[in-house]
Amino acid sequence: MRKLAFDIRIPVVQAPMAGGNITTPELTAAVSNSGGLGSLAAGYLSAREVEQAIRKTRALTQRPFAVNLFAPGARAPLSGDCGTQLRLLSPIHERLGLDPPAMPDRVAELFTEQIEIVFAAKIPIVSFTFGLLPEDVMARLHAQGAFVMGTATTVAEAKMLEAAGVDAVIAQGSEAGAHRGTFDVPAEPPLVGTIALVPQIVDAVKIPVIASGGIMDGRGIVAALALGASAVQMGTAFLTCDECGAPAAHKRAVLDAADDSTSLTRAFSGRWARGIRNRFMEASRRSGSEPLSYPWQNSLTTPMRAAAGKKGEPDYLSLWAGQGTRMARPMPAADLMRVLELEIRQAITDVSSLGGSPTGRTAPA
Amino acid sequence: MRKLAFDIRIPVVQAPMAGGNITTPELTAAVSNSGGLGSLAAGYLSAREVEQAIRKTRALTQRPFAVNLFAPGARAPLSGDCGTQLRLLSPIHERLGLDPPAMPDRVAELFTEQIEIVFAAKIPIVSFTFGLLPEDVMARLHAQGAFVMGTATTVAEAKMLEAAGVDAVIAQGSEAGAHRGTFDVPAEPPLVGTIALVPQIVDAVKIPVIASGGIMDGRGIVAALALGASAVQMGTAFLTCDECGAPAAHKRAVLDAADDSTSLTRAFSGRWARGIRNRFMEASRRSGSEPLSYPWQNSLTTPMRAAAGKKGEPDYLSLWAGQGTRMARPMPAADLMRVLELEIRQAITDVSSLGGSPTGRTAPA
Repeated sequence: MRKLAFDIRIPVVQAPMAGGNITTPELTAAVSNSGGLGSLAAGYLSAREVEQAIRKTRALTQRPFAVNLFAPGARAPLSGDCGTQLRLLSPIHERLGLDPPAMPDRVAELFTEQIEIVFAAKIPIVSFTFGLLPEDVMARLHAQGAFVMGTATTVAEAKMLEAAGVDAVIAQGSEAGAHRGTFDVPAEPPLVGTIALVPQIVDAVKIPVIASGGIMDGRGIVAALALGASAVQMGTAFLTCDECGAPAAHKRAVLDAADDSTSLTRAFSGRWARGIRNRFMEASRRSGSEPLSYPWQNSLTTPMRAAAGKKGEPDYLSLWAGQGTRMARPMPAADLMRVLELEIRQAITDVSSLGGSPTGRTAPA
Repeated sequence: MRKLAFDIRIPVVQAPMAGGNITTPELTAAVSNSGGLGSLAAGYLSAREVEQAIRKTRALTQRPFAVNLFAPGARAPLSGDCGTQLRLLSPIHERLGLDPPAMPDRVAELFTEQIEIVFAAKIPIVSFTFGLLPEDVMARLHAQGAFVMGTATTVAEAKMLEAAGVDAVIAQGSEAGAHRGTFDVPAEPPLVGTIALVPQIVDAVKIPVIASGGIMDGRGIVAALALGASAVQMGTAFLTCDECGAPAAHKRAVLDAADDSTSLTRAFSGRWARGIRNRFMEASRRSGSEPLSYPWQNSLTTPMRAAAGKKGEPDYLSLWAGQGTRMARPMPAADLMRVLELEIRQAITDVSSLGGSPTGRTAPA
């Protein structure tokens, strides 16, 4: 197995979950303190917020943690069906007691200020999604000794990341919750499942591969290791942890969801993302209207989602979740990490006991 | 691990691949003779053809093999956009030297005659897809001592199958090639990935679970066992075997495909199925026209596909394939089974060596 160049006792990376206050310093620190790798989700944060999150996390752990950024190329020029989107939102804003929705006149470009904080704080592990980092940023990160991980949803993207010099690739299978990391935003995003994606990426690159998508417990972790992954990244599993800042209505929805409760949607952010189907996703789909491009749609729906979170209205929240929701467990992150460690040992023992005779039988002849 | 009540040394079921002459008696027998379970794909066959296939297979192996049927409830009343579908096919028929396309006036219901052959031949293992078997058929199969396996794409379907008395459930992940086994044919079929689907089904039923979708080699097999599966079912991996009767153009397309080369389509049969994108799938999609319901669309496109297979024109063939195509290997089935057996041992050894310290490291403190 290809070794990661950072120390974790349990091969689990807590997925950066951006937006709202989902990923808290408390969650990130708890995972790192428990022997995994926590990740701060800086994608939507201002420089000041990134700096504060790093400071708070460092006050809670001596262990390394990652900071996750959105590649700056993810922004698209404004497109989409503005009029219909505003009409879709108007009655919802009224219902939630908000001012009428308004087109965002600009959406701040945050990457340039975020990365300066990452440099200044000498963050040892930096992950990113939505494409490639600028060459000069990669060079500066490596010059600082940072371990850099990019996100791929296909073999082609994994090879581009390797060629760009990343130290590990996060293979995001179709089961994963929230945003697809897909570089381009095509009409039909490639949705390769984890069990197919991981070994094909392992075969195509020489760097370590971190498996993500649908992994919720020790069985999934050991499955990923068998596929050739060096570790896993788990998001939905940590969403229902006590330290996670997701609205209670979001956590409840995850705990109540079935395996087939999620769909992909562009309704919330303009980029394809997997969430539990709710009234807003259905209304957007039925309207046949094209959401604005990312990040415009994200800005447009931010007031609705913030108000819905406060009011506990799951129908107007982005209920990001992967396809493993039936395996979600509400508990403190440190407890979850202890359970995962035991489950990993158990699953390894179970697989080892199969030895050379996986069916536990000998054929008669 | 839940034990299957039939003897296989290698926990591999060759997926029944119906249509054309893809699954041959030679392929089925080679897999059973090599320590796995071969499956005859009887779904589209007449009673006479089923009987012949069983006889030929029995001449080639003493080992048990399965016969696979389509649940009779899969047929839908005729619907869809007949005029546009005929206009879509007309120039292709001309190009392939066929008579103009014509609406099928009826499509034979084959289940009733197929199942009588299965009873008469006392087939020991019967698998099916597209829903549930009629109660009286289940009862007669069990009275004969048959082991019955149904196909589920969600936890809900798996529970329905268990309640209906199946002896094992085949969990079909979204990565799988060809038809989705989904009971209903909804606008958006549930596409739960294997790594999420299998453990959730294992948790929800008490019977053995066979994992399918995206599994191509020993790594995938051991991953499935770690998830709690008792065996795997593999289709695409056998499609490029010498004994497989798929047209050469189909095999070539699989060997040339990337992880993201497939999409779901109703263009060929009226039911959602995963295949390598080609000109016909694209033309159907761009036309915006609704394919006929299953099995009408299947009948309508049969002449095109048969002629394209003979002429080696991959653009008008249903190039069914899963998402693991980069791992496909052209070789005799017996050789593939030997390779899989070695790879399973290797993957078990690799996972076992992780022991209690999956990262192979000890945290400093």
